[in-house]
Amino acid sequence: MTDVRVVLVNPKYEGNVGAVARSMANFGFSELFMVEPCEIGDESYRRAKHGGWILDSSRSVSTLEEALEDCYLVIGTSGIISENDKNYVRLPISARDLGTRIQECEGKVAILFGREDMGLYQEELKRCDILVTIPADEKYPILNLSHAATVILYEIHQNRKDVYRPSQARDDELRLMYGFFDDLLDAIEYPEHRRENTSIMFRRMMGRSVPSRWEFNTIMGVFSDAAKLSRLGRKDQ
Amino acid sequence: MTDVRVVLVNPKYEGNVGAVARSMANFGFSELFMVEPCEIGDESYRRAKHGGWILDSSRSVSTLEEALEDCYLVIGTSGIISENDKNYVRLPISARDLGTRIQECEGKVAILFGREDMGLYQEELKRCDILVTIPADEKYPILNLSHAATVILYEIHQNRKDVYRPSQARDDELRLMYGFFDDLLDAIEYPEHRRENTSIMFRRMMGRSVPSRWEFNTIMGVFSDAAKLSRLGRKDQ
Repeated sequence: MTDVRVVLVNPKYEGNVGAVARSMANFGFSELFMVEPCEIGDESYRRAKHGGWILDSSRSVSTLEEALEDCYLVIGTSGIISENDKNYVRLPISARDLGTRIQECEGKVAILFGREDMGLYQEELKRCDILVTIPADEKYPILNLSHAATVILYEIHQNRKDVYRPSQARDDELRLMYGFFDDLLDAIEYPEHRRENTSIMFRRMMGRSVPSRWEFNTIMGVFSDAAKLSRLGRKDQ
Repeated sequence: MTDVRVVLVNPKYEGNVGAVARSMANFGFSELFMVEPCEIGDESYRRAKHGGWILDSSRSVSTLEEALEDCYLVIGTSGIISENDKNYVRLPISARDLGTRIQECEGKVAILFGREDMGLYQEELKRCDILVTIPADEKYPILNLSHAATVILYEIHQNRKDVYRPSQARDDELRLMYGFFDDLLDAIEYPEHRRENTSIMFRRMMGRSVPSRWEFNTIMGVFSDAAKLSRLGRKDQ
């Protein structure tokens, strides 16, 4: 079963935090991290109901990086869907797709929920391997924080079952692969101003495809050969 | 599109009513009836946010029958699933099944949500044509009222046909991309006996990652440059 950590980034209303805790208990999740949260008091516990124990064992940290420690995959949630596919930072999969795909993960998965008013900032979104959104009415697509968490956790819960999965590439292996891709961009003298976008795009694609170790090794071999030969080729031009 | 009326039976906390109104606006529903509700004041409007207009146009009635007037189908929600099939009053379908089935309805559909503490009474459940439940953790399966409404309305919304999806690469574009990858394998003189497997593997990965058109174009550019330079590089070796 996927090991999920819920991360609330700068939640402003303790009632919402309590409501998220209740929802976590409802769908069988227990690990809650908060980055610089508001004060957690009576109102939180009132809203958490029988999920109060999740607040007791939650951790407050001061940076996003601390909240993501030991996480293999980082998933960001966003209420704003880009109509423009080029706006790579905001191109998401749906909550339903996430529910299916996440079952294949063996490491810990962090799911980030942003501030009630501003959501996740651009820099935080860039840190995510996968972006997920809840398709809603275009006239008012921004859900309340605990409602968004409820839908996402509901979707993951619906898809839980114990099925055999091939062994996955680990976190450090994935980062190595991203490094090889960046090296390939370097070798073909990919335009500097497009490099960051393309590199993030590649990570997102791989994040969505959840490569096995065999796939990871194979792709790495191709990229590394191509980079080597491309460097030689450039000298020849 | 199914014509849905949300009916709250004896809601006790106005905050919950407001949160339900917001969720209705989020998923494109507008008709709210309440049977003997608590007072609807500032806290309701605060929680409803941009869904306040739904509270303005909601109707408070004094009996369930009034709330069900003109409804073709009555759906009850229940957090308690009967383990005993003979307990017909409580044998429900899942929220997901409801989302699919309801699309076929032509008349108005009422969805009933019960009291925060006691849910719907036996007599009220008997009035329902369909019972629906949200599968949750057996240790604590009772969701907050607005969370339950959010999941049900989300499921109905997901099955509506006009939900936005980012534009995907078409079939022939995908084939073109696979062609470029094969060409890259060729350019780096990838071992013949491993080529088919690697090519299939790449197709599988891309299939799982469902690339957008922009991603498809970007990756194709990288592969094509790398292939060109690799060919030059080989000559140089």
